[in-house]
Amino acid sequence: TINGERLWDSLMDMAKIGPGVAGGNNRQTLTDEDGEGRALFQSWCEAAGCSMGLDQMGNMFARREGTDPEALPVYVGSHLDTQPTGGKYDGVLGVLGGLEILRSLNDMNIKTKHPIVVTNFTNEEGTRYAPAMLSSGVFAGIHTQDWAYGREDAEGKTFGDELSRIGWRGDEEVGARKMHAFFELHIEQGPILEADAKDIGIVTHGQGLSWTQVTITGKDAHTGSTPMPMRRNAGLAMARVLEAVDEIAWSHAPHAVGAAGHIDVFPNSRNVIPGKVVLTVDFRSPDLEVIEDMELRLREDAQDIAEAMGVQIEFEKVGGFDPVTFDEGCVAAVRNAAERLGYSHMDLISGAGHDACWINRVAPTAMVMCPCVDGLSHNEAEEISPEWAAAGTNVLFHAVVETAVI
Amino acid sequence: TINGERLWDSLMDMAKIGPGVAGGNNRQTLTDEDGEGRALFQSWCEAAGCSMGLDQMGNMFARREGTDPEALPVYVGSHLDTQPTGGKYDGVLGVLGGLEILRSLNDMNIKTKHPIVVTNFTNEEGTRYAPAMLSSGVFAGIHTQDWAYGREDAEGKTFGDELSRIGWRGDEEVGARKMHAFFELHIEQGPILEADAKDIGIVTHGQGLSWTQVTITGKDAHTGSTPMPMRRNAGLAMARVLEAVDEIAWSHAPHAVGAAGHIDVFPNSRNVIPGKVVLTVDFRSPDLEVIEDMELRLREDAQDIAEAMGVQIEFEKVGGFDPVTFDEGCVAAVRNAAERLGYSHMDLISGAGHDACWINRVAPTAMVMCPCVDGLSHNEAEEISPEWAAAGTNVLFHAVVETAVI
Ligand SMILES: NC(=O)NCCC(=O)O
Ligand SMILES: NC(=O)NCCC(=O)O
Repeated sequence: TINGERLWDSLMDMAKIGPGVAGGNNRQTLTDEDGEGRALFQSWCEAAGCSMGLDQMGNMFARREGTDPEALPVYVGSHLDTQPTGGKYDGVLGVLGGLEILRSLNDMNIKTKHPIVVTNFTNEEGTRYAPAMLSSGVFAGIHTQDWAYGREDAEGKTFGDELSRIGWRGDEEVGARKMHAFFELHIEQGPILEADAKDIGIVTHGQGLSWTQVTITGKDAHTGSTPMPMRRNAGLAMARVLEAVDEIAWSHAPHAVGAAGHIDVFPNSRNVIPGKVVLTVDFRSPDLEVIEDMELRLREDAQDIAEAMGVQIEFEKVGGFDPVTFDEGCVAAVRNAAERLGYSHMDLISGAGHDACWINRVAPTAMVMCPCVDGLSHNEAEEISPEWAAAGTNVLFHAVVETAVI
Repeated sequence: TINGERLWDSLMDMAKIGPGVAGGNNRQTLTDEDGEGRALFQSWCEAAGCSMGLDQMGNMFARREGTDPEALPVYVGSHLDTQPTGGKYDGVLGVLGGLEILRSLNDMNIKTKHPIVVTNFTNEEGTRYAPAMLSSGVFAGIHTQDWAYGREDAEGKTFGDELSRIGWRGDEEVGARKMHAFFELHIEQGPILEADAKDIGIVTHGQGLSWTQVTITGKDAHTGSTPMPMRRNAGLAMARVLEAVDEIAWSHAPHAVGAAGHIDVFPNSRNVIPGKVVLTVDFRSPDLEVIEDMELRLREDAQDIAEAMGVQIEFEKVGGFDPVTFDEGCVAAVRNAAERLGYSHMDLISGAGHDACWINRVAPTAMVMCPCVDGLSHNEAEEISPEWAAAGTNVLFHAVVETAVI
């Protein structure tokens, strides 16, 4: 088994970079803090005897050599970027859990046939740059690199420029690496494991996602002197679209969820009826047909709302992926590991998107999950116990080593 | 009559400072652009032979002497600050119309018994710092200066600090001046004059206003992995509050209006269920009881919404004034002027708040309005014709001079 104390210490050290305002982290992708976190991770990897690869999307690859020069590496990892008000474990556990595997193998003087490579994928969260899992998506050939470079944050700064600015744009061609297998450890970010008192989630599937950016255009006008019947209030139309999103999601519950996390109101002045609102609707389901139905109903319902209110409405799909079925062999390796170690476990469908969802397109992939308190994530109060972290990392360790020795 | 061409040229010159993105202006209070606009106004006033007074709120007072050293001045003016996406005339016409009166009196070599003072009141718009009409409010003794200095913009910069920073914090005690009368010319910002094909609005009353800041606190959580029944979505609660605001206003229409122009969503990330929303509800009516009823119903309805959804809600009144009845004598002076000049006119209730609404508490006050195209204001496309501007300024001229000669 791995060294749970060392793992926890590393998690706490990483959490010192980009502290949040309420005990969590704000280490958003391609900020100075992201750069600092990367440098710390690199220094740890080098101390563990690894070489570091860096591709043109800023994806990091820390390699521990295997004994067979012909064998493809087993990859393991996740992401170090966080939400603006994010937790200390979302993504970070998967990267530092991977590092802990290498450190433990060093301690035990174990040589594996396949090299093992720990990854940190750039911009998994998708807050600063939509879509989420951007760089694992380019790696898997879903997006072109040029398109990714041109993505803009709210201030109009592009992904490509910001990646260069923080000094983490590498030379390596993205997606050139071939993987023997990929494993990702992640906190559940939902309430199921804790409610069922299980140590380990064996992730067999991931639900699909659809992000639709909705732009509503009404007419800026004075809140005092514009008579009610003359108003074209984009803010009120936004309210009705949010209500429709909620109804659409509930109509498919419990097999779907929906909400809008991103809402910008213009000009956002107390005495100006909003002339424009931009929001992003997030729909998810394990069932592709349900996602497609929700997308369609959103466009229909929102169009009806807009027409009734005399406002314009536009839709743009800014992110999404189909539901995922993980690799049988890799899932079995995770299940065997949990069994062997005597942890209570259950099969799970991941509610969130993960880099593993894209890597699954180009390599046999599986995920391990550990519980988090109250199922809470994307919140600075996100919490896990050192025991949960260690259990998840032990299962990851056994699944990875089992796959890497053969 | 005044020189309409010179007035229009000055309006166009002022509009060059702090240009907007769509033909209007962004010259928000206490920005560098506000400072530039003030300097231009001061240079014009000095060229017209006036001395400039500046009080501790940054209110500007350009004085043309009268013949009677004992006589209190007649004041005339409005504000030079704009909305973030504002028009070229809202406020500016009232200030530069006042200046045009002084220039015309100089041209005609007319001496008035009372001095005439043209004012520019600081932060009328209330976008950067709530409430609107902040500095005329301090002048009229409604707010204390210390309270005003401590008001914060969205970035936490205080009014007092920003006033010093742009170099327009004067020494004069605020409200120490006594006024013989106050007149304000303003564009209507509503559709009534244009629809009735009237040149001039004689403003007999102003509707009252109430600004309630509503803070909704739910729980940040992952949009994908948080089951629908576990959500405490502050964004969805905001949508329901906006719907309630609209219903409440309509239930009193046409004697009331209501909307929310300011809405901030936190953390505003595509895959985080909003944990907090702050919005400001703007209710108006010429009837104080209606305003009080709307405020009360907002608090009740929003509380019910919050309880049903398991979110917290808090209310803070951040601005407001009671409906206003302007001074009979001053209103008669405006009406006489319109009659004498042969302009078509009608009585109006102002839909918007104005510095005149506060000054009316400490001096006999009235307002002149001119039409604006489509009743549109607080929009960069705000438009008036040079003829409308000249007609309004002529009426202002006659009303002011009539009041100042006696
Ligand atoms: N795990 C995670 O929060 N990923 C971000 C992408 C998503 O919203 O699911
Ligand atoms: N005239 C004007 O737009 N004043 C701002 C205060 C208000 O919202 O009425």
